[in-house]
Amino acid sequence: MTFSDSDVARLDAEDPLKDKRALFALPEGIVYLDGNSLGPPTKAALARLRLVAETEWRDGLIRSWNDAGWIDLPRTCATKIARIIGARPDEALVTDSVSINLFKLAAALKRLHPAAVLAIAADEFPTDIYVLDGLADLIGAPVRRVAPGDTPDGPTILVKSLADFRTGAVADMAAVEAGIARRGGAVIWDLCHAAGVLDIRVKENGANYAVGCGYKFLNGGPGAPAFVYIANDRSAGLRQPISGWMGHRRPFDFVAGYEPADGVARFAAGTPPILSMAALDAALDAFDGVDLRIVETKARALADLFLERTADLGLVKASAAGRRGGQAGLRHQNGYAVMQALIGRGIIGDFRPPDLMRFGFSPLFLSYAEVATAAAALHDVLATEEWREPRFSQRRAVL
Amino acid sequence: MTFSDSDVARLDAEDPLKDKRALFALPEGIVYLDGNSLGPPTKAALARLRLVAETEWRDGLIRSWNDAGWIDLPRTCATKIARIIGARPDEALVTDSVSINLFKLAAALKRLHPAAVLAIAADEFPTDIYVLDGLADLIGAPVRRVAPGDTPDGPTILVKSLADFRTGAVADMAAVEAGIARRGGAVIWDLCHAAGVLDIRVKENGANYAVGCGYKFLNGGPGAPAFVYIANDRSAGLRQPISGWMGHRRPFDFVAGYEPADGVARFAAGTPPILSMAALDAALDAFDGVDLRIVETKARALADLFLERTADLGLVKASAAGRRGGQAGLRHQNGYAVMQALIGRGIIGDFRPPDLMRFGFSPLFLSYAEVATAAAALHDVLATEEWREPRFSQRRAVL
Repeated sequence: MTFSDSDVARLDAEDPLKDKRALFALPEGIVYLDGNSLGPPTKAALARLRLVAETEWRDGLIRSWNDAGWIDLPRTCATKIARIIGARPDEALVTDSVSINLFKLAAALKRLHPAAVLAIAADEFPTDIYVLDGLADLIGAPVRRVAPGDTPDGPTILVKSLADFRTGAVADMAAVEAGIARRGGAVIWDLCHAAGVLDIRVKENGANYAVGCGYKFLNGGPGAPAFVYIANDRSAGLRQPISGWMGHRRPFDFVAGYEPADGVARFAAGTPPILSMAALDAALDAFDGVDLRIVETKARALADLFLERTADLGLVKASAAGRRGGQAGLRHQNGYAVMQALIGRGIIGDFRPPDLMRFGFSPLFLSYAEVATAAAALHDVLATEEWREPRFSQRRAVL
Repeated sequence: MTFSDSDVARLDAEDPLKDKRALFALPEGIVYLDGNSLGPPTKAALARLRLVAETEWRDGLIRSWNDAGWIDLPRTCATKIARIIGARPDEALVTDSVSINLFKLAAALKRLHPAAVLAIAADEFPTDIYVLDGLADLIGAPVRRVAPGDTPDGPTILVKSLADFRTGAVADMAAVEAGIARRGGAVIWDLCHAAGVLDIRVKENGANYAVGCGYKFLNGGPGAPAFVYIANDRSAGLRQPISGWMGHRRPFDFVAGYEPADGVARFAAGTPPILSMAALDAALDAFDGVDLRIVETKARALADLFLERTADLGLVKASAAGRRGGQAGLRHQNGYAVMQALIGRGIIGDFRPPDLMRFGFSPLFLSYAEVATAAAALHDVLATEEWREPRFSQRRAVL
């Protein structure tokens, strides 16, 4: 479709998610197109953090592990994520980081399917490749690099992103699962760039194992704890190797032998970072009652609007043509400096080497009008060539 | 020594740490003898958490990874811990949980010393045993259970707590290191019940590898991230298996192959929980300029006072006679209920099955007078038998 200015106004007026914006504590004068990298805080998350620190920790002290429900938080928080990804309430756990969870899950599945080969696409999210290689080095197993979209013959443990971190391209979950079902093995879905922006439906699509992150579209805060999903009927035989006390069936009995808890709860390891986890828990309430189909549809429309309004700039699109996650990419040889110039104007996206400007479209807090503003700003930055100013090319670490 | 009431008053008046109490945000009417389980917040930690959430996250958004130094926090925060344990500033890293770090370190050392046998005492902290067993199951190696204080013949990777979690008994670090040096292998020290309350001096005592927790005597907050220590001259050959992007030499270049960062920094894995880590970072400032010898001496004196004033109760002591960490234990068949009754009076300690009441002595915020009050309260609880009230025996999860 083509979006006129009146279309933009109408889409905002009719947006079924428009009331959600008020839940967020966004700074003035910013169009935030980086919710795919670090979601902004909700007002509830900030309030919850104060409560947890200044009442539960300060006044409750050690008693808050029971009285404030800290001990249950990895599970109670995960029930909210379970709904968002289409799992049953007790099939997810919030714990550790994506890297740690991927390691635990891949190790557990390799133990269960010793004949299966660890496999990952050569262009996957780099940290997933690193983690798989690290596990393989430890246990003396190879990791097969597969061509994008391909699956090796024979039993396979395939690690795969549902949404590509560069283009947003969404894999066909049911088809990949069917392919692995024929070969034997399992798929571990990386939902980092999918959870909170796509209508994932893990159960409906036959997915049994997934990991994902809390700080992108779920808005859980910087480095928010990650999650693991395991279908209940697949958990019994899974033994994850980092068997810390929090995954024990009776952690407070201090018995000498490890007995895994039931279900996905056995994927807990050490004591969880409660302050960070509480912020995530509160942030997830922004998804209360939200139909993920509507979220995905709006994300798509926001990205389409942005791409349409920047199509005349002659930049190479790094955006999937079909079903797409909540981001779009544009390539520019000086993409780093262009993005810095945009940030100077209050339009915040991010950059991935060598030349990719990424724009994220979080449907819960973005309006169509903001996206139109961002597209216009990109026009200006390129037309004025202000990105050539030296201050915009000084490279720093970027997340 | 015996402590008269005037001794107690004099010790408080002359306490070189007495000004530290004002740094803490402790609730009124509480004597907190559980800093060995969850340290209380400092005022600076609460303020920092507000700053990080309500300014850095809310206003800085993704930019705060650079502008607010989040990306450096695992290392900058660790320099403070390094001083406390007697390491060089760049020899520690704050990351993940104790369980995860123990797994990474044991796996890396086993890879470096394939002929060495993993070993742990049968009465060690249970979660350390669980983690070692989990690693062993994954890599197909045995774990040797050794008698307390014993070391197996031949090359050994020994996991050992510096301070016993029940009695506070402190191992002779230099002697254990010397024993392992003769056999080959390495010692991984668990400093959970030692960091922040003992004058540890890892370098001086020849210790090369350690893990420890941030939420006990370091007061970092519930589930605060943990730390790893690796002597610089031992890090080069160490490859830890959970090779997530944060431990990469160039995490933001998104190259396809993993290259470990220099030194202990390679023990990072996924994205760290910044909210929790920032609270720890601020909490550690309470140790600024503090001589750990004075901390250890006061902890010992507080525990001695408590034990002396409860000696006539006929309870079995579970406290080391020699050098001792910051806790003391008393056994009582109904210890759970007795501890609940004490908590009802505002004297907070904790309980470990089957019969151990633990009392922690954090020198930075406790006074001698408070400890005398706690001892008097235990007398009262036992004399009145108020612990027999049904409400005190209703068992819940306890940390």
